[in-house]
Amino acid sequence: MKIHRVVRDLVTTARTPTLQAKSLRVVEDDSGDLEVALDSVGAKPGDFVITISTSAARHATGDPKITTDLTIGGIIDHWSEERWHD
Amino acid sequence: MKIHRVVRDLVTTARTPTLQAKSLRVVEDDSGDLEVALDSVGAKPGDFVITISTSAARHATGDPKITTDLTIGGIIDHWSEERWHD
Amino acid sequence: MKIHRVVRDLVTTARTPTLQAKSLRVVEDDSGDLEVALDSVGAKPGDFVITISTSAARHATGDPKITTDLTIGGIIDHWSEERWHD
Amino acid sequence: MKIHRVVRDLVTTARTPTLQAKSLRVVEDDSGDLEVALDSVGAKPGDFVITISTSAARHATGDPKITTDLTIGGIIDHWSEERWHD
Amino acid sequence: MKIHRVVRDLVTTARTPTLQAKSLRVVEDDSGDLEVALDSVGAKPGDFVITISTSAARHATGDPKITTDLTIGGIIDHWSEERWHD
Repeated sequence: MKIHRVVRDLVTTARTPTLQAKSLRVVEDDSGDLEVALDSVGAKPGDFVITISTSAARHATGDPKITTDLTIGGIIDHWSEERWHD
Repeated sequence: MKIHRVVRDLVTTARTPTLQAKSLRVVEDDSGDLEVALDSVGAKPGDFVITISTSAARHATGDPKITTDLTIGGIIDHWSEERWHD
Repeated sequence: MKIHRVVRDLVTTARTPTLQAKSLRVVEDDSGDLEVALDSVGAKPGDFVITISTSAARHATGDPKITTDLTIGGIIDHWSEERWHD
Repeated sequence: MKIHRVVRDLVTTARTPTLQAKSLRVVEDDSGDLEVALDSVGAKPGDFVITISTSAARHATGDPKITTDLTIGGIIDHWSEERWHD
Repeated sequence: MKIHRVVRDLVTTARTPTLQAKSLRVVEDDSGDLEVALDSVGAKPGDFVITISTSAARHATGDPKITTDLTIGGIIDHWSEERWHD
């Protein structure tokens, strides 16, 4: 899993039905690179989270028919920007 | 998912039958690196889109027998080149 | 999918039986990095091709028991080295 | 598989139930980049380990329903920081 | 598939049972970056090999229950360090 920080929500009115109406979040890594993750735990902007990729991302939503390749799997307790770089 | 911008269509007359006759688009990331994505939502050049990779790419087409590893999953509302770099 | 150019054939006398006797090609990306792809469309050195990775690579051969992680999925019409870098 | 060194434990009180209560470890590669791996072998901080990614990560836990994309698969005997860079 | 050179054997006394007792090899790419591959063809240090990743790595062992994400799929005939960089 990767460590990401939630940046903001992402709105996609035109989307494949296989993503259903799930919440998508823009997340960034410690280099500032952006990706988009499906949120299954209710993370808020600023939260440090772990993200799950590949086929596990689909199963982490609780429904493997949801076609995500990146899913927020948990909110990290006690993490700060400093720990990102140790 | 990654954030990509659609550049143009891609024509491959000689192709594996497992890609069927689906539309392919050249997409670029914020570094200008090019990839090719199957389009399931009707994106146009210039659109900012989210792209889905790994096994979810096949399922996002609606038919997991279609052998894509990258599928456009939605068109992003309210995104601009500036937001790519914040 | 990635855009690659076919460089040459690759011969592996000692190989796992799960690759069968399929043709393998050395391919390069626009940085000159080399990978090896199974060829399902009959590409020749110099051809610009799209390559399919992850589980879709196995299915793109027509037989998912063939254990490739990169398969040539089509020959690109009207592509040149200049378009690689636009 | 990748070669990683275990840095510390990671606590995520809010997590997807598909990760169950499995132990998570922060691991670093030889560039110092951090990832998070599920631990199936009882590794301790400072141990050099091999980590397994993609769908094999789920199966390596013994239960493929556990949605990890990176699992510690073994503790390396006789490895030191010097060998990382030879 | 990637082109790797075999560096040495890797011993992991404490390992997940899903890797069984299969031989593991440290391999390097043309940048000197190290990974660990399960060996299904009997490669020796110094051999140039092709390595198979993702779900195909499990199937290339002949038993998809073996949880590897990188498997040596063949020994390359007639390859040298010079060809790595052409």
